[in-house]
Amino acid sequence: MNIGPYEFSEFKELAVKFHGYAAPGLLIGGYMTTAAMAALPAGVLFEALVETYNCLPDAVQLLTPCSTGNKRLHVAPYGKTALSLFDKYTGRGIRARVDPGLLGPWPEIRAWIMKEKSKEEQDEALLERQIAEAGTTIIALQPVSVDLSRLNRKSDGPLAVCPRCGESFPTAHGSLCRACTEGAPYSAAS
Amino acid sequence: MNIGPYEFSEFKELAVKFHGYAAPGLLIGGYMTTAAMAALPAGVLFEALVETYNCLPDAVQLLTPCSTGNKRLHVAPYGKTALSLFDKYTGRGIRARVDPGLLGPWPEIRAWIMKEKSKEEQDEALLERQIAEAGTTIIALQPVSVDLSRLNRKSDGPLAVCPRCGESFPTAHGSLCRACTEGAPYSAAS
Repeated sequence: MNIGPYEFSEFKELAVKFHGYAAPGLLIGGYMTTAAMAALPAGVLFEALVETYNCLPDAVQLLTPCSTGNKRLHVAPYGKTALSLFDKYTGRGIRARVDPGLLGPWPEIRAWIMKEKSKEEQDEALLERQIAEAGTTIIALQPVSVDLSRLNRKSDGPLAVCPRCGESFPTAHGSLCRACTEGAPYSAAS
Repeated sequence: MNIGPYEFSEFKELAVKFHGYAAPGLLIGGYMTTAAMAALPAGVLFEALVETYNCLPDAVQLLTPCSTGNKRLHVAPYGKTALSLFDKYTGRGIRARVDPGLLGPWPEIRAWIMKEKSKEEQDEALLERQIAEAGTTIIALQPVSVDLSRLNRKSDGPLAVCPRCGESFPTAHGSLCRACTEGAPYSAAS
Protein backbone atom coordinates (compact mmCIF):
# COMPACT_ATOMS: atom_id res chain seq x y z
CA MET A 1 0.00 0.00 0.00
CA ASN A 2 1.31 3.49 -0.84
CA ILE A 3 2.59 5.81 1.89
CA GLY A 4 1.27 9.25 1.06
CA PRO A 5 2.16 9.90 -2.57
CA TYR A 6 5.01 7.36 -2.47
CA GLU A 7 5.30 3.71 -3.28
CA PHE A 8 6.48 1.71 -0.28
CA SER A 9 10.00 1.29 -1.70
CA GLU A 10 10.24 5.01 -2.57
CA PHE A 11 9.27 5.98 0.97
CA LYS A 12 11.88 3.57 2.30
CA GLU A 13 14.53 5.39 0.28
CA LEU A 14 13.39 8.77 1.63
CA ALA A 15 13.44 7.32 5.13
CA VAL A 16 17.03 6.10 4.76
CA LYS A 17 18.13 9.50 3.48
CA PHE A 18 16.41 11.56 6.15
CA HIS A 19 16.29 9.28 9.17
CA GLY A 20 19.31 7.02 8.61
CA TYR A 21 17.31 3.83 8.07
CA ALA A 22 13.81 2.66 7.22
CA ALA A 23 12.79 2.02 10.82
CA PRO A 24 9.53 0.09 11.40
CA GLY A 25 8.19 3.05 13.41
CA LEU A 26 8.83 5.38 10.50
CA LEU A 27 7.00 3.10 8.05
CA ILE A 28 4.03 2.66 10.41
CA GLY A 29 4.15 6.41 11.12
CA GLY A 30 3.95 6.93 7.38
CA TYR A 31 0.69 5.01 7.25
CA MET A 32 -0.63 6.80 10.35
CA THR A 33 0.09 10.15 8.71
CA THR A 34 -1.46 9.00 5.44
CA ALA A 35 -4.64 7.88 7.20
CA ALA A 36 -4.96 11.07 9.27
CA MET A 37 -4.37 13.34 6.26
CA ALA A 38 -7.00 11.51 4.24
CA ALA A 39 -9.51 12.11 7.04
CA LEU A 40 -8.92 15.88 7.20
CA PRO A 41 -11.16 18.19 5.18
CA ALA A 42 -9.48 19.08 1.88
CA GLY A 43 -7.37 22.23 1.87
CA VAL A 44 -7.16 22.66 5.63
CA LEU A 45 -3.98 24.35 6.92
CA PHE A 46 -2.91 21.90 9.59
CA GLU A 47 -0.32 21.30 12.28
CA ALA A 48 0.76 18.05 13.92
CA LEU A 49 1.04 16.80 17.48
CA VAL A 50 3.08 13.61 17.79
CA GLU A 51 3.09 11.68 21.07
CA THR A 52 6.59 10.25 20.95
CA TYR A 53 10.05 11.29 19.81
CA ASN A 54 10.55 7.81 18.32
CA CYS A 55 10.47 7.85 14.53
CA LEU A 56 6.92 9.24 14.09
CA PRO A 57 8.03 12.91 13.96
CA ASP A 58 10.09 12.09 10.87
CA ALA A 59 7.13 10.42 9.14
CA VAL A 60 5.20 13.66 9.63
CA GLN A 61 8.15 15.74 8.41
CA LEU A 62 8.53 13.60 5.27
CA LEU A 63 4.83 13.58 4.36
CA THR A 64 3.40 16.92 5.49
CA PRO A 65 4.42 20.61 5.47
CA CYS A 66 4.92 20.40 9.27
CA SER A 67 8.49 20.49 10.61
CA THR A 68 10.28 21.15 13.89
CA GLY A 69 11.79 24.38 12.56
CA ASN A 70 8.57 25.86 11.17
CA LYS A 71 6.87 25.04 14.48
CA ARG A 72 3.97 23.22 12.85
CA LEU A 73 5.25 19.94 14.34
CA HIS A 74 4.73 19.61 18.10
CA VAL A 75 5.95 16.68 20.19
CA ALA A 76 4.43 15.53 23.50
CA PRO A 77 6.79 12.99 25.12
CA TYR A 78 4.14 10.44 26.10
CA GLY A 79 5.88 7.43 24.55
CA LYS A 80 2.72 6.62 22.57
CA THR A 81 2.47 5.47 18.97
CA ALA A 82 -0.08 8.18 18.19
CA LEU A 83 -0.29 11.46 16.31
CA SER A 84 -2.89 14.12 15.56
CA LEU A 85 -3.22 16.42 12.59
CA PHE A 86 -5.42 19.43 13.30
CA ASP A 87 -6.64 22.71 11.87
CA LYS A 88 -4.11 25.40 12.76
CA TYR A 89 -6.86 27.89 13.63
CA THR A 90 -9.62 25.81 15.24
CA GLY A 91 -7.66 22.88 16.70
CA ARG A 92 -10.17 20.41 15.27
CA GLY A 93 -8.59 17.37 13.71
CA ILE A 94 -7.93 13.66 13.65
CA ARG A 95 -5.88 11.48 16.02
CA ALA A 96 -4.35 8.33 14.55
CA ARG A 97 -3.00 5.44 16.58
CA VAL A 98 -2.17 1.81 16.02
CA ASP A 99 -5.08 -0.15 17.48
CA PRO A 100 -3.84 -3.40 19.09
CA GLY A 101 -7.32 -4.83 18.45
CA LEU A 102 -6.64 -4.65 14.71
CA LEU A 103 -3.29 -6.47 14.88
CA GLY A 104 -4.73 -10.03 14.90
CA PRO A 105 -3.61 -10.87 11.34
CA TRP A 106 -0.18 -9.27 11.94
CA PRO A 107 1.60 -11.04 14.80
CA GLU A 108 5.02 -9.63 13.88
CA ILE A 109 3.72 -6.04 14.08
CA ARG A 110 2.05 -6.78 17.39
CA ALA A 111 5.25 -8.30 18.80
CA TRP A 112 7.23 -5.26 17.65
CA ILE A 113 4.83 -2.62 18.90
CA MET A 114 4.28 -4.27 22.28
CA LYS A 115 8.02 -5.01 22.55
CA GLU A 116 7.30 -8.71 23.06
CA LYS A 117 10.48 -9.81 21.30
CA SER A 118 14.11 -8.77 21.64
CA LYS A 119 15.78 -7.23 18.61
CA GLU A 120 17.54 -10.55 17.97
CA GLU A 121 14.28 -12.52 17.98
CA GLN A 122 12.59 -10.14 15.51
CA ASP A 123 12.22 -11.19 11.89
CA GLU A 124 12.84 -7.79 10.28
CA ALA A 125 11.96 -8.84 6.75
CA LEU A 126 8.67 -10.36 7.90
CA LEU A 127 7.91 -7.29 10.04
CA GLU A 128 8.45 -5.00 7.07
CA ARG A 129 6.30 -7.19 4.82
CA GLN A 130 3.48 -7.18 7.36
CA ILE A 131 3.70 -3.39 7.72
CA ALA A 132 3.46 -2.94 3.94
CA GLU A 133 0.54 -5.37 3.68
CA ALA A 134 -1.36 -4.04 6.69
CA GLY A 135 -0.97 -0.44 5.51
CA THR A 136 -3.57 1.82 7.10
CA THR A 137 -5.84 -1.08 8.17
CA ILE A 138 -4.23 -1.23 11.64
CA ILE A 139 -4.79 2.48 12.30
CA ALA A 140 -7.70 3.72 14.41
CA LEU A 141 -8.83 7.29 13.75
CA GLN A 142 -10.67 9.51 16.19
CA PRO A 143 -11.86 13.13 15.83
CA VAL A 144 -10.15 15.36 18.39
CA SER A 145 -10.04 18.95 19.47
CA VAL A 146 -6.55 20.27 20.32
CA ASP A 147 -6.13 23.04 22.89
CA LEU A 148 -3.98 25.44 20.86
CA SER A 149 -3.04 27.49 23.94
CA ARG A 150 -0.97 24.54 25.20
CA LEU A 151 1.28 24.38 22.14
CA ASN A 152 4.51 26.31 21.55
CA ARG A 153 3.45 28.69 18.80
CA LYS A 154 4.27 32.13 20.15
CA SER A 155 6.82 34.41 18.59
CA ASP A 156 9.84 35.12 20.81
CA GLY A 157 9.04 38.85 20.90
CA PRO A 158 11.65 41.57 21.60
CA LEU A 159 15.27 40.68 22.37
CA ALA A 160 17.81 41.99 24.86
CA VAL A 161 21.43 41.17 25.66
CA CYS A 162 21.88 38.85 28.63
CA PRO A 163 24.03 40.65 31.24
CA ARG A 164 25.66 37.37 32.26
CA CYS A 165 26.68 35.71 28.96
CA GLY A 166 26.44 38.70 26.63
CA GLU A 167 24.22 36.89 24.10
CA SER A 168 20.83 38.08 22.88
CA PHE A 169 17.68 36.37 24.16
CA PRO A 170 13.91 37.03 24.35
CA THR A 171 13.09 39.57 27.11
CA ALA A 172 9.94 37.53 27.81
CA HIS A 173 12.25 34.95 29.46
CA GLY A 174 13.24 37.33 32.29
CA SER A 175 16.27 39.45 33.14
CA LEU A 176 18.77 36.70 32.23
CA CYS A 177 18.64 34.22 29.35
CA ARG A 178 17.41 30.69 30.08
CA ALA A 179 20.83 29.20 29.33
CA CYS A 180 22.15 31.24 32.30
CA THR A 181 19.19 30.76 34.66
CA GLU A 182 18.67 27.04 33.99
CA GLY A 183 22.30 26.18 33.33
CA ALA A 184 22.83 25.12 29.74
CA PRO A 185 23.74 21.49 29.02
CA TYR A 186 26.96 22.68 27.36
CA SER A 187 30.02 24.37 28.79
CA ALA A 188 33.06 25.96 27.19
CA ALA A 189 35.84 23.50 26.42
CA SER A 190 39.36 24.04 25.22
CA MET B 1 28.96 30.93 -0.61
CA ASN B 2 27.79 27.29 -0.62
CA ILE B 3 25.63 25.93 2.17
CA GLY B 4 26.96 22.47 2.97
CA PRO B 5 27.22 20.63 -0.35
CA TYR B 6 24.59 22.89 -1.97
CA GLU B 7 24.76 26.06 -3.99
CA PHE B 8 22.81 28.87 -2.33
CA SER B 9 19.92 28.61 -4.81
CA GLU B 10 19.77 24.80 -4.46
CA PHE B 11 19.56 25.09 -0.68
CA LYS B 12 16.79 27.66 -1.07
CA GLU B 13 14.80 25.13 -3.10
CA LEU B 14 15.30 22.46 -0.44
CA ALA B 15 14.22 24.98 2.20
CA VAL B 16 11.01 25.80 0.36
CA LYS B 17 10.19 22.12 0.00
CA PHE B 18 10.88 21.14 3.59
CA HIS B 19 10.17 24.31 5.57
CA GLY B 20 7.60 26.08 3.39
CA TYR B 21 9.84 29.03 2.47
CA ALA B 22 13.50 30.04 2.41
CA ALA B 23 13.38 31.88 5.74
CA PRO B 24 16.40 34.06 6.63
CA GLY B 25 16.90 32.00 9.80
CA LEU B 26 17.06 28.82 7.78
CA LEU B 27 19.67 30.26 5.41
CA ILE B 28 21.78 31.60 8.29
CA GLY B 29 21.24 28.31 10.12
CA GLY B 30 22.57 26.57 7.02
CA TYR B 31 25.83 28.54 7.29
CA MET B 32 26.01 27.92 11.05
CA THR B 33 25.65 24.18 10.45
CA THR B 34 28.19 24.28 7.63
CA ALA B 35 30.74 26.09 9.83
CA ALA B 36 30.22 23.78 12.82
CA MET B 37 30.46 20.62 10.69
CA ALA B 38 33.69 21.83 9.11
CA ALA B 39 35.18 22.30 12.59
CA LEU B 40 34.35 18.78 13.77
CA PRO B 41 36.99 16.05 13.43
CA ALA B 42 36.37 14.05 10.24
CA GLY B 43 34.19 10.96 10.62
CA VAL B 44 32.82 11.77 14.05
CA LEU B 45 29.31 10.44 14.77
CA PHE B 46 27.59 13.56 16.00
CA GLU B 47 24.34 14.87 17.41
CA ALA B 48 22.98 18.42 17.47
CA LEU B 49 21.69 20.75 20.17
CA VAL B 50 19.82 23.74 18.76
CA GLU B 51 18.90 26.63 21.06
CA THR B 52 15.68 27.77 19.40
CA TYR B 53 12.70 26.22 17.65
CA ASN B 54 12.86 28.99 15.02
CA CYS B 55 14.12 27.70 11.69
CA LEU B 56 17.54 26.44 12.84
CA PRO B 57 16.33 22.89 13.59
CA ASP B 58 15.38 22.53 9.93
CA ALA B 59 18.82 23.70 8.75
CA VAL B 60 20.33 20.90 10.85
CA GLN B 61 17.80 18.38 9.53
CA LEU B 62 18.53 19.34 5.91
CA LEU B 63 22.31 19.26 6.23
CA THR B 64 23.15 16.57 8.78
CA PRO B 65 21.97 13.03 9.65
CA CYS B 66 20.34 14.45 12.82
CA SER B 67 16.54 14.61 12.93
CA THR B 68 13.79 14.98 15.53
CA GLY B 69 12.58 11.42 14.93
CA ASN B 70 15.99 9.73 15.17
CA LYS B 71 16.63 11.68 18.40
CA ARG B 72 19.99 13.02 17.23
CA LEU B 73 18.48 16.53 17.09
CA HIS B 74 17.84 18.11 20.49
CA VAL B 75 16.20 21.49 21.02
CA ALA B 76 16.66 23.74 24.07
CA PRO B 77 14.04 26.53 23.94
CA TYR B 78 16.40 29.41 24.80
CA GLY B 79 15.40 31.66 21.90
CA LYS B 80 19.06 31.93 20.85
CA THR B 81 20.46 31.83 17.33
CA ALA B 82 22.98 29.17 18.32
CA LEU B 83 23.59 25.48 17.79
CA SER B 84 26.14 22.86 18.79
CA LEU B 85 27.25 19.73 17.00
CA PHE B 86 28.96 17.24 19.30
CA ASP B 87 30.39 13.74 19.46
CA LYS B 88 27.56 11.37 20.36
CA TYR B 89 29.77 9.44 22.79
CA THR B 90 31.99 12.08 24.42
CA GLY B 91 29.84 15.22 24.15
CA ARG B 92 32.80 17.23 22.85
CA GLY B 93 31.95 19.49 19.97
CA ILE B 94 31.54 22.94 18.49
CA ARG B 95 28.99 25.65 19.27
CA ALA B 96 28.17 28.06 16.45
CA ARG B 97 26.40 31.37 16.90
CA VAL B 98 25.97 34.57 14.95
CA ASP B 99 28.41 37.06 16.51
CA PRO B 100 26.87 40.58 16.50
CA GLY B 101 30.46 41.93 16.54
CA LEU B 102 30.97 40.49 13.04
CA LEU B 103 27.84 42.08 11.56
CA GLY B 104 29.37 45.53 10.88
CA PRO B 105 29.44 45.09 7.07
CA TRP B 106 25.95 43.58 7.06
CA PRO B 107 23.44 46.09 8.49
CA GLU B 108 20.41 44.28 7.07
CA ILE B 109 21.40 41.03 8.80
CA ARG B 110 21.98 42.91 12.05
CA ALA B 111 18.58 44.63 11.81
CA TRP B 112 16.92 41.27 11.16
CA ILE B 113 18.67 39.31 13.87
CA MET B 114 18.23 42.01 16.52
CA LYS B 115 14.62 42.58 15.39
CA GLU B 116 15.33 46.28 14.85
CA LYS B 117 12.91 46.56 11.91
CA SER B 118 9.32 45.51 11.45
CA LYS B 119 8.58 42.97 8.73
CA GLU B 120 7.29 45.79 6.52
CA GLU B 121 10.48 47.84 6.90
CA GLN B 122 12.72 44.89 5.99
CA ASP B 123 14.27 44.71 2.55
CA GLU B 124 14.00 40.96 2.03
CA ALA B 125 15.99 40.82 -1.20
CA LEU B 126 18.84 42.82 0.35
CA LEU B 127 18.74 40.66 3.50
CA GLU B 128 19.02 37.50 1.44
CA ARG B 129 21.87 38.95 -0.62
CA GLN B 130 23.78 39.92 2.52
CA ILE B 131 23.23 36.45 4.02
CA ALA B 132 24.62 34.80 0.87
CA GLU B 133 27.61 37.17 0.73
CA ALA B 134 28.41 37.00 4.44
CA GLY B 135 28.21 33.19 4.43
CA THR B 136 30.06 31.72 7.41
CA THR B 137 32.04 34.92 8.15
CA ILE B 138 29.44 36.11 10.69
CA ILE B 139 29.58 32.87 12.66
CA ALA B 140 31.63 32.55 15.86
CA LEU B 141 32.71 29.03 16.78
CA GLN B 142 33.58 27.83 20.26
CA PRO B 143 34.62 24.37 21.50
CA VAL B 144 32.08 23.01 23.98
CA SER B 145 31.44 19.98 26.08
CA VAL B 146 27.81 18.82 26.19
CA ASP B 147 26.46 17.01 29.25
CA LEU B 148 24.93 13.95 27.57
CA SER B 149 22.97 12.99 30.69
CA ARG B 150 20.79 16.08 30.20
CA LEU B 151 19.60 15.12 26.73
CA ASN B 152 16.61 12.94 25.84
CA ARG B 153 18.32 9.83 24.51
CA LYS B 154 16.93 7.00 26.59
CA SER B 155 14.88 4.19 25.16
CA ASP B 156 11.29 4.09 26.43
CA GLY B 157 11.80 0.65 27.99
CA PRO B 158 8.97 -1.83 28.68
CA LEU B 159 5.35 -0.92 27.95
CA ALA B 160 2.09 -1.48 29.81
CA VAL B 161 -1.54 -0.67 29.13
CA CYS B 162 -2.76 2.49 30.89
CA PRO B 163 -5.72 1.51 33.13
CA ARG B 164 -7.39 4.85 32.46
CA CYS B 165 -7.25 5.30 28.67
CA GLY B 166 -6.46 1.73 27.63
CA GLU B 167 -3.48 2.73 25.47
CA SER B 168 0.05 1.39 25.83
CA PHE B 169 2.74 3.59 27.40
CA PRO B 170 6.23 3.22 28.96
CA THR B 171 6.01 1.78 32.49
CA ALA B 172 8.87 4.11 33.43
CA HIS B 173 6.33 6.96 33.35
CA GLY B 174 4.38 5.59 36.34
CA SER B 175 1.13 3.69 36.85
CA LEU B 176 -0.82 5.86 34.38
CA CYS B 177 0.33 7.26 31.03
CA ARG B 178 1.46 10.89 30.90
CA ALA B 179 -1.47 11.87 28.69
CA CYS B 180 -3.76 10.85 31.59
CA THR B 181 -1.65 12.22 34.46
CA GLU B 182 -0.75 15.54 32.81
CA GLY B 183 -3.95 15.96 30.82
CA ALA B 184 -3.27 15.76 27.10
CA PRO B 185 -3.70 18.89 24.97
CA TYR B 186 -6.31 17.05 22.88
CA SER B 187 -9.76 15.74 23.77
CA ALA B 188 -12.24 13.56 21.93
CA ALA B 189 -14.51 15.48 19.56
CA SER B 190 -17.55 14.37 17.63
